[in-house]
Amino acid sequence: MALRVVALAGGVGGAKLADGLAAVLPPQSLTIIVNTGDDFEHLGLAIWPDLDTVMYTLAGLAHPKTGWGRRDETWNFLQTLGELGGPTWFRLGDRDTALHVLRTQQLRAGARPADVVEGLCRQLGIPHTLLPMTEDRVRTMVATDDGELPFQEYFVARACEPKVRGFRFDGAESSAPGRGVLEALHAAEVIIVCPSNPWVSIDPILAVPGIREAVASRPVVAVSPIIAGEAVRGPAAKIFREMGIEPSPLAVAEHYGGLLGGMVIDRADAALRPALESRGLRVRVAQTLMRKPADRRALAEAALDHATSVVNEKVTP
Amino acid sequence: MALRVVALAGGVGGAKLADGLAAVLPPQSLTIIVNTGDDFEHLGLAIWPDLDTVMYTLAGLAHPKTGWGRRDETWNFLQTLGELGGPTWFRLGDRDTALHVLRTQQLRAGARPADVVEGLCRQLGIPHTLLPMTEDRVRTMVATDDGELPFQEYFVARACEPKVRGFRFDGAESSAPGRGVLEALHAAEVIIVCPSNPWVSIDPILAVPGIREAVASRPVVAVSPIIAGEAVRGPAAKIFREMGIEPSPLAVAEHYGGLLGGMVIDRADAALRPALESRGLRVRVAQTLMRKPADRRALAEAALDHATSVVNEKVTP
Repeated sequence: MALRVVALAGGVGGAKLADGLAAVLPPQSLTIIVNTGDDFEHLGLAIWPDLDTVMYTLAGLAHPKTGWGRRDETWNFLQTLGELGGPTWFRLGDRDTALHVLRTQQLRAGARPADVVEGLCRQLGIPHTLLPMTEDRVRTMVATDDGELPFQEYFVARACEPKVRGFRFDGAESSAPGRGVLEALHAAEVIIVCPSNPWVSIDPILAVPGIREAVASRPVVAVSPIIAGEAVRGPAAKIFREMGIEPSPLAVAEHYGGLLGGMVIDRADAALRPALESRGLRVRVAQTLMRKPADRRALAEAALDHATSVVNEKVTP
Repeated sequence: MALRVVALAGGVGGAKLADGLAAVLPPQSLTIIVNTGDDFEHLGLAIWPDLDTVMYTLAGLAHPKTGWGRRDETWNFLQTLGELGGPTWFRLGDRDTALHVLRTQQLRAGARPADVVEGLCRQLGIPHTLLPMTEDRVRTMVATDDGELPFQEYFVARACEPKVRGFRFDGAESSAPGRGVLEALHAAEVIIVCPSNPWVSIDPILAVPGIREAVASRPVVAVSPIIAGEAVRGPAAKIFREMGIEPSPLAVAEHYGGLLGGMVIDRADAALRPALESRGLRVRVAQTLMRKPADRRALAEAALDHATSVVNEKVTP
C-alpha cells in the first residue's frame, strides 16, 4: 500500500517532482496542491501559470526547455496581437491560449476553480488530483526597489530584475483553502514540499488561513530547490541573496521554520548534512537536479523513501 | 471631386464591392456602414463576422477562397480547444482569435464599438471609414421549420440547412444608429447597397430606427446579389425560394421596395432590364461577379458611374 501523499507545488521544479510522484504513486495516493498566487488576468483571460505548468507537465505536454508553456507551440495569435497593437510581453501560444479562453468562459459561466481544474485534468488524461490552494483571489505582490509590482510584472515583464525587499499575498488573509485542500492535508501520511521557490511558490500556499496549521500537523519533507547556492531555474537564489540570506538548503530549512521533519538535498550539498541534522532534521542526500524524466521518478522515489523513514521515526519515538 | 458615397455592406459580396469602392474613392468620400446582426458572443469573445470580413478584405488579409477568416491562417487554437472539450463548430483561426480577444477586452474596458472599429482600422491600415450600423445589441434570429435559431447557429452550425420562414432582428426596435451613421447618410450624395444578402445583411441595417428613413432620403443604387437566379455565395437565393419568391434582380428590387433609384445587374440578367425600368429604376448592366481584385474595382467604377447618372436624374427632373 502506497503512502498517502500531498505535494505542495508551484513552478517548474515543483511540476517536475509532482510528475515523478505521479509516475510512482497511484491516483488515490497523491494530491498536488498548487500555488495560485501567480494567477492573473491578462487580455480579459484568466491565466493560472503554476496550475498550467503542473497540468502540462503531468500531461506530457510541457515544453521541454522553456519551463513554461506547451511543446509544439505556435505563435500566430501573439504575432497578430502585436500587429493589432495589443500587448505581447506575456507570451501566449496558440495552443496555450485555447486553455485560457476555455477556462475564462467556464469561470464566467459560474464554474468553481476546483471544478475547472478537475475538468481540465480529465480532458488532459491526468488521473491524480490537482487542487488550487484556494478558490479565492490571492495575488503575489513583490516589494522591490522600484516599488511594489504584481508578480507577473516582476517575473515576466521585468525578468526578475528589480531588487526584492519582500512579498505580500494580497487577499490571502480573507481567503479559504480550496475545495478538498484541508481534507487532503489531514488525510496525508506525509506532505512533500516540492523543490519550488519558497518565497513565491510555497509561501502563498502556506499563507492561506488554515493551511500552515494543517501542514504543521503532519510529517513534512522538503526537497531543496537550492543546489550549491543556486536555483536550477528562476529567481529563488537571487531573492534569498537580496533578502540578505546566503542561499543554501540550510536557508531553505530556516525559511520553513519548524515545519520540516526531513529534507532531501543534492549531493553537491552533502557537507551541509550535519548542520541540518543538528537542527533536528532527517536528511537524505540524492541527485535533486531533474534533467530527464527518469530523474523525476528517481527523485520521487528517494523523497518517498525518505518520507517513509521520517513518518516511522515520528510514529516510534 | 469624387462623389460622397455611403455603402451598406455585410458578408463577402458586400466586402468585395466595398474594397473596390475603397480602391477608387479617397478616404473622405467613402463611408461603409456594416451589418452587426450577425455578431455574437462565443467562448466569451465578441465576434463580429461582417465587420471582420469587411476589415480583413479592405486590409488585404481576407482568405481568398473561404469567404471568411484570414489568409495564412493556422488552427492550433481550435484543435487544442477541441482536445480540451471546448466547442469547435465555429472555426476560430489562431490569427483571427487575436482580434476577437483584443476587441473583447477593449469592450469590457468600456470602449464603444465605433471606437473599437476605428482603432482596428487604424492598426490594419484602412484609411476609409467603417461604421457599425448600431452600437447596441441587435441579433438576427432566423425563423425556420426547426424553430427560431440565432443567426450563427443557422448559418454555421446548421449550414443554412433548415427551411427559412422569416427573420427577426432582436433588439433592433430599441437600438440607435451607430456613431456617425446618420450624419454619413445625410451627407451622402448617393448610397450604394452592396451585393449582400438582402434578408440577413442589409435588412438588419435598415431595421435600426432612423436608418431606413435616412437612406430613403438619398439617391440609392443597389448592386444585385442575385445573378441568373443564384447567389454567388451564401443562402440568399435559397432564402428567396423558401420565402416563396423566385430569386432574381427583380425580386431584389421588390425586396427593397421604394428605396432604390437605380440598380446594377449582371449581364446574365440583361433581359430583366425592361421589367426593372418599368418599375421606375435606372438600370446598368455590368459584370457583377467579382473573381479577381480588378473585378471589384471595375464593378465599383460601374456602380459609381451609374450612381452619378441616378443622382443627376434626381437633380434635374
